[in-house]
Amino acid sequence: MEQRAITEELAGFISSYDSLLIPDEVKKQAVRSLVNWIACALGGANHPAVTKALEAIKPFAGNGHATVIGRSDKLDALNAALLNGISSHVLDFDDTHLATLVHPSGPVISALFALSEYQKIDGNLFIESVIYGIEMECRVARGVCPAHYDRGWHVTSTAGVFGAAAATGRALGLSQQKMAWAFGLAATQASGLREMFGSMTKSFHPGHAAQCGLRSAFFAQAGFTSSTRGIEAPRGFANVLSTERNLDMMIEGLGSLWLTNENSFKPYACGLVIHPVIDGCLHIKKNYSFESAQIEKISLLVNPLVLELTGKKQPVTGLEGKFSVQHSAAIVLLEGVSKSKQYSDAVVGGAEVTRLRNLVQIKSQSDIRIDEAYIELLLSDGTKISHHVEHALGSLERPMTNQDIDEKYYDLTSSIMSKDKANRLLSDCWNVESLDDVGKTLGKQLLFT
Amino acid sequence: MEQRAITEELAGFISSYDSLLIPDEVKKQAVRSLVNWIACALGGANHPAVTKALEAIKPFAGNGHATVIGRSDKLDALNAALLNGISSHVLDFDDTHLATLVHPSGPVISALFALSEYQKIDGNLFIESVIYGIEMECRVARGVCPAHYDRGWHVTSTAGVFGAAAATGRALGLSQQKMAWAFGLAATQASGLREMFGSMTKSFHPGHAAQCGLRSAFFAQAGFTSSTRGIEAPRGFANVLSTERNLDMMIEGLGSLWLTNENSFKPYACGLVIHPVIDGCLHIKKNYSFESAQIEKISLLVNPLVLELTGKKQPVTGLEGKFSVQHSAAIVLLEGVSKSKQYSDAVVGGAEVTRLRNLVQIKSQSDIRIDEAYIELLLSDGTKISHHVEHALGSLERPMTNQDIDEKYYDLTSSIMSKDKANRLLSDCWNVESLDDVGKTLGKQLLFT
Repeated sequence: MEQRAITEELAGFISSYDSLLIPDEVKKQAVRSLVNWIACALGGANHPAVTKALEAIKPFAGNGHATVIGRSDKLDALNAALLNGISSHVLDFDDTHLATLVHPSGPVISALFALSEYQKIDGNLFIESVIYGIEMECRVARGVCPAHYDRGWHVTSTAGVFGAAAATGRALGLSQQKMAWAFGLAATQASGLREMFGSMTKSFHPGHAAQCGLRSAFFAQAGFTSSTRGIEAPRGFANVLSTERNLDMMIEGLGSLWLTNENSFKPYACGLVIHPVIDGCLHIKKNYSFESAQIEKISLLVNPLVLELTGKKQPVTGLEGKFSVQHSAAIVLLEGVSKSKQYSDAVVGGAEVTRLRNLVQIKSQSDIRIDEAYIELLLSDGTKISHHVEHALGSLERPMTNQDIDEKYYDLTSSIMSKDKANRLLSDCWNVESLDDVGKTLGKQLLFT
Repeated sequence: MEQRAITEELAGFISSYDSLLIPDEVKKQAVRSLVNWIACALGGANHPAVTKALEAIKPFAGNGHATVIGRSDKLDALNAALLNGISSHVLDFDDTHLATLVHPSGPVISALFALSEYQKIDGNLFIESVIYGIEMECRVARGVCPAHYDRGWHVTSTAGVFGAAAATGRALGLSQQKMAWAFGLAATQASGLREMFGSMTKSFHPGHAAQCGLRSAFFAQAGFTSSTRGIEAPRGFANVLSTERNLDMMIEGLGSLWLTNENSFKPYACGLVIHPVIDGCLHIKKNYSFESAQIEKISLLVNPLVLELTGKKQPVTGLEGKFSVQHSAAIVLLEGVSKSKQYSDAVVGGAEVTRLRNLVQIKSQSDIRIDEAYIELLLSDGTKISHHVEHALGSLERPMTNQDIDEKYYDLTSSIMSKDKANRLLSDCWNVESLDDVGKTLGKQLLFT
């Protein structure tokens, strides 16, 4: 496995591939990723994690060329990348590359957007750079996952730093040599532990990856040298941070296999693995008539990862609710919706939802896919209602439409923006490729003065 | 191993131990660490790695409350910590905790000194905080080393971030709860690969650790939550970043075993494992009379780590020379000294030193200690000169005296400071405990306008 110069091959592709050859459908998916990222960052902008991070960092931030999305502050690009990475992930509502569990846009677009406010980037270069960033991080991730994730690494962070370096390195026009150095710098900053799930530090991860990746590109641009074998060397990323690896998967089909196409978007504001359960509960609530008081038992049959990642039986805060499949099932059967509000502290603490949560019984089977679930309700009169979700909304087989993404955007922004303002911003996002200066056009709309 | 709350125990010690109980000898060693750190940072201040890093970071740095040592720039404290961490390590001349191979002061003092320029810290609190920082990083390191280092991690970086968080967290007066969060944030930023050795990115590591550790303390202070089991949790630092671990060693003898006492200082500007070879060659050069042209063979018998870490046969740059035991032996036998100049590009490229390097033959044996070496010269007339170094200067058995440290300081600063200025600064460093405001007193002398 030391044979091939993986880092150099990836650096060559990211720095020199002819962007005219990128298929249109890939570009469309990148634009969808941008819209979804902005929706999530706006929705998360006033979360306490962002407020506290901003309080901590503000005395040390540099000249304000870059917007902290949905806030009244402009910071230096490196710190704006950090803050926007936090906002975009803090609701656990951002995009997912299902094969690796990477959330691609948090690191990539947070870094690139901050750069675009520092130096002019037009819409075409912006979207192409998003694609190079997503390709890089998903490729690095697929070469080490699932072993790397199983080991305890938050792959959004560890692979994300490569994605952020790739996107911004491409936008900066780095040579192959300098791109390889940027990847060396990214490799040596790759970090982020799954132990942090459930605390504010989880959302810190994509922000940190964005910031470190952007800084890697700046350092490489300045001629700060690094290893050009950061990924494949015996003491490089793939060996040190994973128990298993398949480096060929990182470079498979460069220019023909586009992982950006595999990016998916979440309709519900919680852990992706809970989505099939929510889908099924929504279906039941919509199609059957019953009072919540009638419910005596809620049985779920799911993939084992559901319990591993989201098995929090007694959530107290909204954040914990996102990691509780029990809460998701209970609240949907109670309220019939699954939006941001259903994961607030107040809603999670409700008496009836707490009663319902305690009725949830879960079994898991490894042959049930991650986007699949079986749900069965037992009512007090002995009625059983059951439903099988084959593919949850948001999966590759049942992707969200652009209209679904619009709805999500309005759900996340309605409380903080006028409809007019929201419409204008949304329109600019969908038409990003025609913008002459992405940072300028979007930045002034994302700053809330 | 999940039994004990390691992170909380360490956070309790670091946040709440009564500093009056710290033995005087420990404080003296911390002061020696400060003097040595300042000498190294001044010596490294004009290295191209620092110049390029400064060029890359300057457009993004915040208000200049903190000095970039030996330069004319003041940056925000977080970026000053990064830059000074690079300067202090770039000559590979900084301190070493031999049992773990941690270079303690780069992360710890770079972070703490930057903080001391942002908010007033008096001399006593400064030195106590240095101690807490060194204790923390060396304790974290000893709980996972040598397996962690063998795996490929640069432990100065991975453990250093905990040290920087501890030192600055203590100076900020963090509660145990917040200190534990700071350690959670440190755990999730722990990174740094040995693959980077030989490039500028190696020196980036302690700077990055300093910056991330300081930021961890600021974030925790602001109430940004994290795991309080960042070190010992199944998906925490010790499990994810090491193949073996002994968590008891992290908390052994808190308040009685002071690892700061084990900190050692290098007399020579190169890899520590080369020191016994240099010592022996210096002894031979000083005590025997011969011309370099007479040398026909140079035989070394050393610990296996010498070849692993510093076996670069044909170094081209000064930086590579530091990782070449062959160069060190050759240049000392040629010039009879081993100071910074002997690791410059010009000297490394010399014809005679290149000839001598090619005569070096190395054998290694695992029962030879890391501070031990056997050297034998064969001269053209058949004479053999041999010498056995039992403990190299700078080892715990043969530590540098304060006067040795002074000499090192003057070697590193003579070309950039007047003798008067150097004397005044040195005196303030040795008397740091009596200073009312460490950052103010030292900062203005370290800024080169």
